[in-house]
Amino acid sequence: MHSENRVSRILNTDYPIIQGGMAWASDPILTAAVSNAGGLGMLASGSMNAEDLSLEIEKTRTLTERAFGVNVMMLSPHLHEIIDLLVQERVHLVTLGAGNSGKVIGKLKSAGIVVAPVIASVAMARRAESVGADMVIAEGMEAGGHIGRVTTMALVPQVADAIQIPVVAAGGIADGRGMAAAFCLGAEGVQMGTRFVCSVECQVHENYKERLVKASELDAIIAGVGSGHPIRCLRNSLTRKIDVMEKRGAEFEEIERIAVGGLRRAVKEGDMDNGSVMAGQICGLVKEIVPVDKIIRSMIEEFTHIFRDHSGGSLS
Amino acid sequence: MHSENRVSRILNTDYPIIQGGMAWASDPILTAAVSNAGGLGMLASGSMNAEDLSLEIEKTRTLTERAFGVNVMMLSPHLHEIIDLLVQERVHLVTLGAGNSGKVIGKLKSAGIVVAPVIASVAMARRAESVGADMVIAEGMEAGGHIGRVTTMALVPQVADAIQIPVVAAGGIADGRGMAAAFCLGAEGVQMGTRFVCSVECQVHENYKERLVKASELDAIIAGVGSGHPIRCLRNSLTRKIDVMEKRGAEFEEIERIAVGGLRRAVKEGDMDNGSVMAGQICGLVKEIVPVDKIIRSMIEEFTHIFRDHSGGSLS
Repeated sequence: MHSENRVSRILNTDYPIIQGGMAWASDPILTAAVSNAGGLGMLASGSMNAEDLSLEIEKTRTLTERAFGVNVMMLSPHLHEIIDLLVQERVHLVTLGAGNSGKVIGKLKSAGIVVAPVIASVAMARRAESVGADMVIAEGMEAGGHIGRVTTMALVPQVADAIQIPVVAAGGIADGRGMAAAFCLGAEGVQMGTRFVCSVECQVHENYKERLVKASELDAIIAGVGSGHPIRCLRNSLTRKIDVMEKRGAEFEEIERIAVGGLRRAVKEGDMDNGSVMAGQICGLVKEIVPVDKIIRSMIEEFTHIFRDHSGGSLS
Repeated sequence: MHSENRVSRILNTDYPIIQGGMAWASDPILTAAVSNAGGLGMLASGSMNAEDLSLEIEKTRTLTERAFGVNVMMLSPHLHEIIDLLVQERVHLVTLGAGNSGKVIGKLKSAGIVVAPVIASVAMARRAESVGADMVIAEGMEAGGHIGRVTTMALVPQVADAIQIPVVAAGGIADGRGMAAAFCLGAEGVQMGTRFVCSVECQVHENYKERLVKASELDAIIAGVGSGHPIRCLRNSLTRKIDVMEKRGAEFEEIERIAVGGLRRAVKEGDMDNGSVMAGQICGLVKEIVPVDKIIRSMIEEFTHIFRDHSGGSLS
């Protein structure tokens, strides 16, 4: 198989597969495991300060010599010190989520860092390209965590038609079938979150992994629509409480009070009732916890077989 | 290209492509055009009575000698007379939407009719198979009209893993890229609605087609979530009114009053403000109104090229 394309060349990886940077769940061990297996591992700076992130980067470098990246939330209270740190550390890739990334792209680019905004619409993709992004992560609303409104199937071909830089598809992808589908739609790489959470190397609480493995596609609902910042997570006591509060017209601040710290409660304490168990709709496909290198290897094998089986355009 | 597979054999068509049965928009002219072009055209019985549907079937038969089908809403007030008519007329395919189809499948099957329930979850797919369906239409929530909650990308592989009968993917598909992606995910056929509405042969009001051609992916929103029967349609004055009513907690009946007849107003009168302009998120990809045979021909060409280009599993 030709394992190289525009995205793997830009990422300096064996395969154009990125592990989504997930606050609390993406740590140096997972990140290094993905990079060592030929993909691109990602730390997530979340609402960390620069000092904490610096320690994570340092630790990751002790675990891998390969390229890795950091996801940055544009809404981070420590945005500017985080960007300064990344420029200084020259991590390979920075993905930018939740906000207008135009302001920081120039700074990162001039340090030679590959920049990929996470986008949820054609207009956002065009804007990212116009401000100098190297590629975009086109994330469908079946993804876990903070989401937009357009699905991967609808978003990826429309984005691919609109821009020249490469498109990496995210949302609803957990195996070689999803990767092959994304490539048919015009993507040149994939980013996965839920699948990598259910890896041996991911350090989330065992309850979290077990809950994901048992979940069906209908369990990954959308919470907090009323807040304007919807997130996809597994239905539980917390999402039911938020739902009741939204129905009676509670203020954002009141809902925020019961939701705050929810992701940490789920990931670190294993509280599956009152924690925020972020997961994508593809969770129903994830049936076992396996090592990262097995996830990547079997994906690439399946991807290759699919195109071999259909080569010549055969329908069956 | 091998143009035959399990689905095209069951459908008795050249290609495994179904035109979704859309109330008010699927008429004998469109249905016959799709069947004559090698796909399977579909009438939509909507809330029609048997007498009206009988005339539509008769007219379709004057326009094509090929197989076609009828979509039946399980919530139709005329359900039983419609089913009796279909048994008598022995149309080739019946798709069943919006409700528990177990009750009517036996009757249709014993008349030799191919039966395909539209399903929105793995559990619904399993149920359809267990009551004797020939195939399922797995419809993602990016589709237009009445929708479920799971996206095509997440739904199709999970359904394909769960059942043995063929899966036809619907939602987010408007070209050969979408069809190829659906096949990678495990589908053996596709159903399209929005793409066929923007055909020369579709008899919806010109305003409707023009509005779809101009729409972006973000325009196809979800209305009526509070009612428990969400539909995807283009944002307009009607959807804004419904939104305001839902936010102040209006009763279903009150919302129903302004929504009733909305689809007819849009399709027949061309009222793009107060009508219900049903459309899928893939509308942003549909840039021109072309004849049905061109839609199908270019889809199959693109589908074939994609697999030829990637044959051997090449990434670029």
